[in-house]
Order: sequence, then structure tokens, then C-alpha cells
Amino acid sequence: MSQQASVYSLSTPAVLIDENIVDNNIARVQKYMDQAGLKARPHIKTHKIPEFAKKQLAAGAVGITCQKISEAEIFADAGIDDILLTFNIMGDEKLAALKALHERITLTVVADSKHTIDGLAETFGAEKPLRVMVECDTGGQRCGVQSPREALELAQHIEAQAGLKFVGLMTYPMPNTEDDVEAFFEETAGLLKRENIECEVFSTGGSPSLFSAERTTIANEYRAGTYIYNDRSLVRAGHCGFDDCAMHILTTVVSRPTETRAVLDAGSKALTSDLLGFSDFGYVVDYPEAVITGLSEEHAVVDLSACSKKPEIGEKIRIIPNHTCVVSNLMDNIYVHKGGAFDRKIEVAARGRVW
Amino acid sequence: MSQQASVYSLSTPAVLIDENIVDNNIARVQKYMDQAGLKARPHIKTHKIPEFAKKQLAAGAVGITCQKISEAEIFADAGIDDILLTFNIMGDEKLAALKALHERITLTVVADSKHTIDGLAETFGAEKPLRVMVECDTGGQRCGVQSPREALELAQHIEAQAGLKFVGLMTYPMPNTEDDVEAFFEETAGLLKRENIECEVFSTGGSPSLFSAERTTIANEYRAGTYIYNDRSLVRAGHCGFDDCAMHILTTVVSRPTETRAVLDAGSKALTSDLLGFSDFGYVVDYPEAVITGLSEEHAVVDLSACSKKPEIGEKIRIIPNHTCVVSNLMDNIYVHKGGAFDRKIEVAARGRVW
Repeated sequence: MSQQASVYSLSTPAVLIDENIVDNNIARVQKYMDQAGLKARPHIKTHKIPEFAKKQLAAGAVGITCQKISEAEIFADAGIDDILLTFNIMGDEKLAALKALHERITLTVVADSKHTIDGLAETFGAEKPLRVMVECDTGGQRCGVQSPREALELAQHIEAQAGLKFVGLMTYPMPNTEDDVEAFFEETAGLLKRENIECEVFSTGGSPSLFSAERTTIANEYRAGTYIYNDRSLVRAGHCGFDDCAMHILTTVVSRPTETRAVLDAGSKALTSDLLGFSDFGYVVDYPEAVITGLSEEHAVVDLSACSKKPEIGEKIRIIPNHTCVVSNLMDNIYVHKGGAFDRKIEVAARGRVW
Repeated sequence: MSQQASVYSLSTPAVLIDENIVDNNIARVQKYMDQAGLKARPHIKTHKIPEFAKKQLAAGAVGITCQKISEAEIFADAGIDDILLTFNIMGDEKLAALKALHERITLTVVADSKHTIDGLAETFGAEKPLRVMVECDTGGQRCGVQSPREALELAQHIEAQAGLKFVGLMTYPMPNTEDDVEAFFEETAGLLKRENIECEVFSTGGSPSLFSAERTTIANEYRAGTYIYNDRSLVRAGHCGFDDCAMHILTTVVSRPTETRAVLDAGSKALTSDLLGFSDFGYVVDYPEAVITGLSEEHAVVDLSACSKKPEIGEKIRIIPNHTCVVSNLMDNIYVHKGGAFDRKIEVAARGRVW
């Protein structure tokens, strides 16, 4: 495809990324973090593309966040040398991979149990201790220690290992739970101080309530992913508008079986089944009254009842997904454009990395 | 990994496929189809692996079904020469790819509109007409013509094109709608006969109600996919038992934050968000009382409240997914075993093909 061509002539489904919007989104969030006095450590799960992580670092991010070793390896290969891996790593094969990664970059991991810490301790030595944070459950009800007292105990357990260094606290909060995060971090900080344990990093995150991060008095690092592309869930959260959404899924109307039904060539293999609280599967940019009522793997069924103007068979229409990160994971490539003009195809290098 | 090793020692998440169960599932369904007098044309969307399609053909299938050109190309490359593509193909680039594919195999496609037919007609010539079926909506409310009268009109339109040959009717039915399929096919067959239009194939499908397919008096070809692996949805449908499910997702308990909560290292990137009417995200084989209440991309949150025995951190546990096809699409590789003994790793060659 030539650089003069419009991305809207691409075969579908295709994931389009507007680079102007990406650049604006990065700049906007970095500026906010700078003003709030927070270090930005973007989560690369949203784009899974080293080139885009480098944009985030160039804007001022201190490093990146990955969720899996195999993701982190790809970004390390691309020259990114400060990575936080927010996952309990265990098992011989993964610990060996973690050790190899640690040899070549500044690596930090998290742990929420003695089991995880003991596995790390057996793997790493005093010559280059591994940086470890304690993951705290501040209401997200996923991983994490349940109390500041437990956080202290794990910090002490980390500090007792020759090959490990306790560096901070990390939480993955639910939106609008800043007060719970503050309370957990403050109380733990007090306990740590009493035991003379230094705590360098207080890391929180999440895109939905990113723009209230300035209210923190203790967090000093912020991990967010989705803001680089934005999506329908972040529009709903008030984080951005539809015009700030960099990712569009370009689809074709392949069937118009009835007056009120259209079928698109993008199903759960392109849009995913992630609802994130919505009752339908994406926002139809070109026909905002259209409702994507159902997905099978290769088809989206669209109810056009509320549309005054209706799309024709063969017409291409754009969708903003409910959740952008999971779409990236399905795509071998994305198509980068600027306001519609094709610029380049990029491989989603860290797509599909499951461990 | 050596062939003596147990697959349960693999790093997680990993998709395990028990080949003994695969072979049994193929044999059972082929035998049923033979007895019912139906040609089997398995849908490869479930496994996306040429080697497994060849098992289905060796058992007696007449050909395969694909949903996308890029899938079909991979199976044609592997030597499979009779493919039904159950999708409205349109657009210059795809029509060119379709023509190239048609040069080298016996290819049949479907259409449910004059728009689709006209695109095909412009692409194919009388020297080797393309085989085209009319897709009928018999209640599935996805693609397909709405009435036998429309089906006739499209059959006539196909027959009027030098480069196309009408070969039959195809439907993707909802489970337990055999009577609607029969009525639609019968009425259309009558209309076609009156116009002296030959109709070679009456194609229906779907795994959930596969074992009632013998009741048809008109369908002569059956497309099913999921039966090769089976999954939780097919157990619920009464098609099979959990012991007939060939796919397990092997995961590790990476966190036990509370007495009743476990977190696994398999999230929506491994299990997918497909609920298929369930309220949770998979069946935990090793702890049947456990409930997977939530997924994020890399974590499953499991409620252990109902479990008398509870898994420990580091323990590996197996999950049967709600929907097996979408899991295959996420995986670069699967691990084939026989009753737990590792046999080989297979690339999911047609994974992630979106067009």
C-alpha cells in the first residue's frame, strides 16, 4: 500500500491506528503526570509494540510495565532497559528466563506471597539483587496482600534474602478507589519506616481514573496502558472523547439480510467478547445509532433500527472497541495512519505472549 | 520437552490437547454421519491445524469448511483440495485471492446477496466456474436470505453468470431448529425444481445438536467444528461429557490472597471472555466446585468458597473452556499428549487469520 493511499481502502477487518491521536494522547498524559509529580511507567499491554513504547519513553516515561516475561523479552530486545513485571513469577523455566532478562536490563518484579519470594530468592544472587515490590490488594480483589501488616512481613522476607532487594509497593486499583490506595500505602509506609525499611516506589495505576492521580500524597509512580489508544470504556469513564480514540477497527458490511440488520466481517476474533459493562460490542463511529447486538467469531450482527441512514452492502464502517488492549492481542499487524492517510504497517511484536 | 515427560510439567498457561480424545471424537461423529447418510464437512475453525483436518478427512469427511480466505489458503497449502468457504467474499483484494485459490483446489463459496454474486461474477470465468451456494437464514439471524423465494432468485442470478455455478443451499442454524431448516430447504427445493435448477448440496451444521442430524429428510451435508475438541458448552448441550473434552488449559495458581480466593495465570488472553450463556469463565477440572468469577487479560480470579479442598500457590490446575474455538485462535502452539504423556507441539497454523 502506498503512503498516498487512504487506510479506508484496506481489506477488512483491519486495525487502524491514528498516529496523530497516539502522539496527542501520550503528550497529554505525560504532561499531566509531570504536573502531578508522578513518574509515568506505561503498561505496554495496550499496544504491544516497541516503537510505541519508545514514544512513551521519549515523552518522559521512566520505564515500562509488562505483564509477562515473554512480553518483557521483546521490549528488552528492542533496547528498553527499565522494565517492571507486575506478575508473580514462579516455576523453573520462567525463573531461568527471568534471570537471563535480569542480566541485561534493570528489572523489577512483584510478589504477594512467600512462595513467590522463595522462588525468586533461590534464583538470584547477591552480585546483582533483583528488585522486588510487594503487590497490595487495595480493593481490586485480584492479587495482592490483604493488609499493611502482611505487606510489611513480605518486605521483611524480601529483605532477608541475599539476592533480593525490596523496593516498594504496587497496587492495581479499581477506578475511584484513590482513598483506599492512599490509606493502604500510608499505613504500610508507617510500618516500614518503624522497621527502618526503605520504600522507594509507591506504584499505582489504571487509565480510567488517571486524571485524578494528582490527588495522591504518597504514590510516586503511575502505570497506565489504555490511554495511548483510548477506547469506548475510557470515553464512558470521562477520560477522553471519541475523537481521542486512536484505534478503529475497519470492517465491511458483508450482508444486509433485512431492513434493520447488517452483518460485518469483524467478530469476536477482531472485537473480542469483552463487554466491560456495556451491553453491546463496540461503538459504530460512522453510524452512532447502530447497535452491535451479537458477535460470532467472524461476524458482528448490527441492529440498524435506530439509524435514519443505513449502511449498504460493501460499505466500510469503523468501530471503536469496548476494550482496546485485547484487540491488539489478536492482531499480527496494525495499520498506522495520520488522519486517514496510510503511513506504515507495524507488527504487533508482543501479541499472543501467554507466559 | 521429551516424549516421556508429563504435559503437566509445562510452563503455564499452555493449551493441552489429548490426541486419544481427538481421535475418539472424530471417529464417533464420522460414524454417526455415515449412519445418518450425511456427508461430513468439518469446520476447521476449532483447531486451525492442517494435521487435524487430515485426520478428519482420513476418517471419511468429504472436505473441510473454512470461514476466511486466509484460513483456506493455509489448508490448501497443506494439500487439502476441497474447501467450502462459508462467507460472503467481496472487495478486489479478496476476490483476487479467491481466484488464485480457486485455480488450485475445488472451491465452493456462499452468497446471500446480488452484491456478493456480482463481485464473484466479475472475477470468475466460464473456463472454470466457481461453485456458489445460497446462504439461508433459517432462524440464526445472522447472514442469509430471508425466504425460499429470495433463495430462488439468487440461485437464478448465480445461474445467469457464465463464471458461476449454483450448487446448493447452506444454513447456519440455531440449535434445535431442525424443523425450520427442513421447512426452508424443502420449500426452496420445490421452487428450484419447478425452475429446473439442480440443487446438489443441502448443507446444515453445528455441533450442539449434531446428534439429531439424522432426523433430516433433505440435508445431505453437515458442517460441525467444535466436536473435535468439545468444550463446556457442548457438555451443557448434552453432546458429550467432560471426559470427552480434548482441550485443557493448564494454569498455575499464582496467588492465594485470601482463604477463598485463588488467582490463576490464565486470563482473557487464554480463556477468552466468551460466556456462551455461562455466568463464569470455564470449568475447573481439578476443583469442580471452584468458580472462575472474573478475568482480566492475564489473571483469572477464582472463588473457592464451595471447595472442600483448596489448591495451593504454585499448583497447576486444568480448565475446560466455555468455548474451545476462540482459545485456539489465541495460541501460537498447542501441546499434544496421550493421557498426559507429552507427544508433540503443533503450531496453530491458521491462528489469527482475520480476512
